[in-house]
Amino acid sequence: MKNSSKSNLDRAMAELLSNYQSPELPMRASTHRPMPNRSEIIAIILNLHRILFPGFFEEGESSVLTSEDALDRLLYETYYRLKRQIVLAFSFFAPEKDFSEFEEKAVAICDGFFEQLPTIQTMLQKDVNAGFIGDPAAQSKEEIIICYPGFYAISVYRFAHELYLAKVPLLPRIMTEYAHGLTGIDINAGATIGENFFIDHGTGIVIGETCVIGKNVKVYQGVTLGALSTRGGQSLAGVRRHPTVEDNVTIYAGATILGGNTVIGANSVIGGNCFVTKPIPPNTKVFAATQELTLKRDSINKE
Amino acid sequence: MKNSSKSNLDRAMAELLSNYQSPELPMRASTHRPMPNRSEIIAIILNLHRILFPGFFEEGESSVLTSEDALDRLLYETYYRLKRQIVLAFSFFAPEKDFSEFEEKAVAICDGFFEQLPTIQTMLQKDVNAGFIGDPAAQSKEEIIICYPGFYAISVYRFAHELYLAKVPLLPRIMTEYAHGLTGIDINAGATIGENFFIDHGTGIVIGETCVIGKNVKVYQGVTLGALSTRGGQSLAGVRRHPTVEDNVTIYAGATILGGNTVIGANSVIGGNCFVTKPIPPNTKVFAATQELTLKRDSINKE
Amino acid sequence: MKNSSKSNLDRAMAELLSNYQSPELPMRASTHRPMPNRSEIIAIILNLHRILFPGFFEEGESSVLTSEDALDRLLYETYYRLKRQIVLAFSFFAPEKDFSEFEEKAVAICDGFFEQLPTIQTMLQKDVNAGFIGDPAAQSKEEIIICYPGFYAISVYRFAHELYLAKVPLLPRIMTEYAHGLTGIDINAGATIGENFFIDHGTGIVIGETCVIGKNVKVYQGVTLGALSTRGGQSLAGVRRHPTVEDNVTIYAGATILGGNTVIGANSVIGGNCFVTKPIPPNTKVFAATQELTLKRDSINKE
Repeated sequence: MKNSSKSNLDRAMAELLSNYQSPELPMRASTHRPMPNRSEIIAIILNLHRILFPGFFEEGESSVLTSEDALDRLLYETYYRLKRQIVLAFSFFAPEKDFSEFEEKAVAICDGFFEQLPTIQTMLQKDVNAGFIGDPAAQSKEEIIICYPGFYAISVYRFAHELYLAKVPLLPRIMTEYAHGLTGIDINAGATIGENFFIDHGTGIVIGETCVIGKNVKVYQGVTLGALSTRGGQSLAGVRRHPTVEDNVTIYAGATILGGNTVIGANSVIGGNCFVTKPIPPNTKVFAATQELTLKRDSINKE
Repeated sequence: MKNSSKSNLDRAMAELLSNYQSPELPMRASTHRPMPNRSEIIAIILNLHRILFPGFFEEGESSVLTSEDALDRLLYETYYRLKRQIVLAFSFFAPEKDFSEFEEKAVAICDGFFEQLPTIQTMLQKDVNAGFIGDPAAQSKEEIIICYPGFYAISVYRFAHELYLAKVPLLPRIMTEYAHGLTGIDINAGATIGENFFIDHGTGIVIGETCVIGKNVKVYQGVTLGALSTRGGQSLAGVRRHPTVEDNVTIYAGATILGGNTVIGANSVIGGNCFVTKPIPPNTKVFAATQELTLKRDSINKE
Repeated sequence: MKNSSKSNLDRAMAELLSNYQSPELPMRASTHRPMPNRSEIIAIILNLHRILFPGFFEEGESSVLTSEDALDRLLYETYYRLKRQIVLAFSFFAPEKDFSEFEEKAVAICDGFFEQLPTIQTMLQKDVNAGFIGDPAAQSKEEIIICYPGFYAISVYRFAHELYLAKVPLLPRIMTEYAHGLTGIDINAGATIGENFFIDHGTGIVIGETCVIGKNVKVYQGVTLGALSTRGGQSLAGVRRHPTVEDNVTIYAGATILGGNTVIGANSVIGGNCFVTKPIPPNTKVFAATQELTLKRDSINKE
């Protein structure tokens, strides 16, 4: 390495070290306390999938039948790993306290989470079923579990939602953003979503934090269930700003539904690309006015 | 672990075990027979890429020149791994039969697949070429092979399509959904797509199972080639429900083209965000009517 | 393996070997010279994130405080790995020259890159801050660093942009397409983007190569800042064909802004789904005309 390169790197390092103290982004931890770990959260998600759908998420050859012993070990292992991350999440935002102060709380949350796990599994089995019934391209239910991005995103959302309800910081969002990255489907862990939920294709879907979605709802790619404006920024935190979608609603591709007062009534169908900011009564089909298309004979392409 | 946590986990496990027998999602395999494996399919895709484009998909430093010996080994290895997955796929859905009953069929399908491989390679070389010619941001053909998501999605589709034609269950969809996850481009393995196909940007594209696409077609991000309605669910399985796109057509970003009777005639151009559900004659440029925009001087932002 | 399978594979191999010489896609390297390596570029990106935001991108448990020694080692390691890839990138496109001819150039570019690194870090800290202020769903700045896809895409863009300015082939595109794959956000390394840039949700965003974006700009999912037409293909390479977005502009979800003469004036707001191909004056709110919706009482769903 040339001397100039070396002094260059040394100077860079000095500046980097000083930037760590930036007023724009003060690094919160003043100790060597470890922070919650994204790769660990991802491993926990994988374990949860392996527990709920044995055989479908394994690395090597495997069958859907698992020994009770193996399940038992996996369950305990996942419990401890999740508990650890919950402790780290709480204590990261309260560096003045000792880890041990969060141990009891983390145990209670973890106990609650695992108590809910069979219910989550039942919900997910219904989601798979709804997907199979609704999608002519699905050749089997197994196909949905093993490779549908919509099912993946819903399942991670259902895990994350439990932790969101328990007010665990950071972890729910790490979970749903991981699924978002893999699937292009962005479901905030705060949303409330009923059973038999089916997402087809899915890329580009956004479901906001304060959405409430009923049972038997079907949503296609590119649908936004969002806020009318976020100009308020942090002053809107916690405020109800996303729509309500009642039971048995279908929302076709590219539709945008915005606002905390926008209720889509039960049994309604929202057509592709509709832009909806007002409530829609139940049993209603909504279409965008037929788009006027201009057709022009093209001479350029024929040259 | 507290006793209450332990009894909690034990209870959860009992419920999980009982859920595995759920009527909504009966686990198909009644034996310890292994199922097709997603990570193995991903490894096979990688191998196919390594075979067709030597050097471009390697982990460590490598050149585009490969010894014939190395290619030979890779080819044989990939053949056996694919054959194994084909056997598993067929037998997973026929657990009453012995693996050996599918061996011959798997050999025939694998033989056919590898026989087609040089043709697929030629198609992909043309796809790369079409991309380079069509995209001013492409600095080299190598750039397209090594990092264009559109090329990645097309190549995986071309592999999966062969297996779809051979009626292999599960594997084609695992392949295309893997590419969908990496690229945001959702091409069903059942679609028929001609040579010199180019996808630019690509995120959000959906190309349905029964689409037929000609030669020299160019498609941008957010384009849907979909079904008019999927309300029929499984009763529509196998029915022609997606559009036909003839030769030399360009479809700009966000356009939606729906329905099994919708034919986009040769040499036509579909403008950005057009919503097309009727046939378009050849040599036609289609624009959405100029969108009426309301411009309002904004006082809020100037405070 | 059956004899027929073997002869089949042997024939396939002969054709593959001959295809490598295809006139459509001549493999550039005529020697065993190694090419730039995608997995190595990904490792370099990870290192850069670890340097700029200690603790946030680690695999195992870690804290945000890092020893100067560890930082020092990581900085030097990353310098050498990046330099190697720069040499490979230049020499891959000039196989007639010796590696050593590019060594000096690579050192100069690497020196420049690491000199810029603290400035990039400061920019990114401001981006995080802008995100936190602008998003009611953000619970902490740490959440943005650790899991927001928008932040990830911006940071990789800021790395890649430096290499684009230094005219390094291939590497900038590999970087931004890697981020595109993970986030669904496609920012070309050539774009110019000012400080305090915030992307919310992000999936489906496309920001073209010749875009110029000012300070404090906020962009939502599905926004395209693109070219009006790319029919010119390679003849448009280097030509200014993407929009300018001035300071303090907000662009809501699904808006499309096209063309090299399209300037969005400072402090303006572009509403959701607007399609803009003409300049917009400063301090303007732009809405699409309220979409006419047809509501029809639906009898089918009530059966």
